[in-house]
Amino acid sequence: MRFVLATHNTHKVAEFDQILASALPGVSVLGYDGPEPVESGVSFVENAFIKARVAAEHTGLPSLADDSGLCVNVLSGMPGIFSSRWSGEGATDSRNVELLLAQLADVPDEYRAAQFRCVIAVVIPATASSPARELSVEGVWPGHIARAPEGTNGFGYDPIFVPEGFDVSAASLNPEEKNDLSHRARAIRELAKVLADD
Amino acid sequence: MRFVLATHNTHKVAEFDQILASALPGVSVLGYDGPEPVESGVSFVENAFIKARVAAEHTGLPSLADDSGLCVNVLSGMPGIFSSRWSGEGATDSRNVELLLAQLADVPDEYRAAQFRCVIAVVIPATASSPARELSVEGVWPGHIARAPEGTNGFGYDPIFVPEGFDVSAASLNPEEKNDLSHRARAIRELAKVLADD
Repeated sequence: MRFVLATHNTHKVAEFDQILASALPGVSVLGYDGPEPVESGVSFVENAFIKARVAAEHTGLPSLADDSGLCVNVLSGMPGIFSSRWSGEGATDSRNVELLLAQLADVPDEYRAAQFRCVIAVVIPATASSPARELSVEGVWPGHIARAPEGTNGFGYDPIFVPEGFDVSAASLNPEEKNDLSHRARAIRELAKVLADD
Repeated sequence: MRFVLATHNTHKVAEFDQILASALPGVSVLGYDGPEPVESGVSFVENAFIKARVAAEHTGLPSLADDSGLCVNVLSGMPGIFSSRWSGEGATDSRNVELLLAQLADVPDEYRAAQFRCVIAVVIPATASSPARELSVEGVWPGHIARAPEGTNGFGYDPIFVPEGFDVSAASLNPEEKNDLSHRARAIRELAKVLADD
């Protein structure tokens, strides 16, 4: 089965394809260059379905979309759905990281807990033999926010996210290690389980 | 009774003095130029007490401190305690406003509810006739976040906060009107009630 992944981010397509294909032989994940809707939802689940539905409608193929973000406890779960645009107009990974570190500058170590969260929405168009279906899964990667960026692998907030059980940032892990541990990896494996049980 | 207000912000001293003195004849509010501690608390209440305790210790006088902020529902109550430093290092009112508007750019009108919140902590040192006392009160001003700044009165997030019952921003109200409606006004009146019942 082929899934379209509703993102223009090639990092994500590679990550999904690598994990999903290894868990479920015969499944592959394709990139998508169709329209990207405004993510006007107010939760990961809403935004993921907004994107997956547009891709399914545009391509006619089973479509996946994830909405992921960093949830910092002392920020009541923010940046959350605002992770990629946290620093506003023209946001970049490094500006987002810099802003978050500055916001948390006075926050003591014991209050720096955070989680990467990933929700994957699946939209499967109706076929001659089966009705349309929608489902979603979630993956959570616990850790805390460092005092300064570290490491050059990864993207987004990886340089300041120290996963539980480590004393280095997610950007210091090698890609294989991260692909095994990450919130997206956890969500994709959960998805593989659900699809396998189908 | 004279209270020291633990802030270097002269706007706030004037606001407290005006409201508290008019509600409680004989009470006045003094400015403070002593040490300002790091606000390392993770709630308005904690930060207010951190500041009031330092001022009481430094001056030996009954001391007040407020911790106030803008709580946006779709941001799970943030900027909250981070309101004044929302845009990070070198934050200014206009940068904070600009960042918040950019973060909420895709958020539809029905999800733009927000409240200004103000907690006032009171620390009264022990005297010969009475032991030390601590208490706190809270004031809440409901409204929503506008699409663009408006008005030139006020400070902080006033230009983008539209109070419930109005269709203009808090920065468009005249100072008397705002002093009557604001979160700080509500908290200060609550404080006056508590002090009057003493």
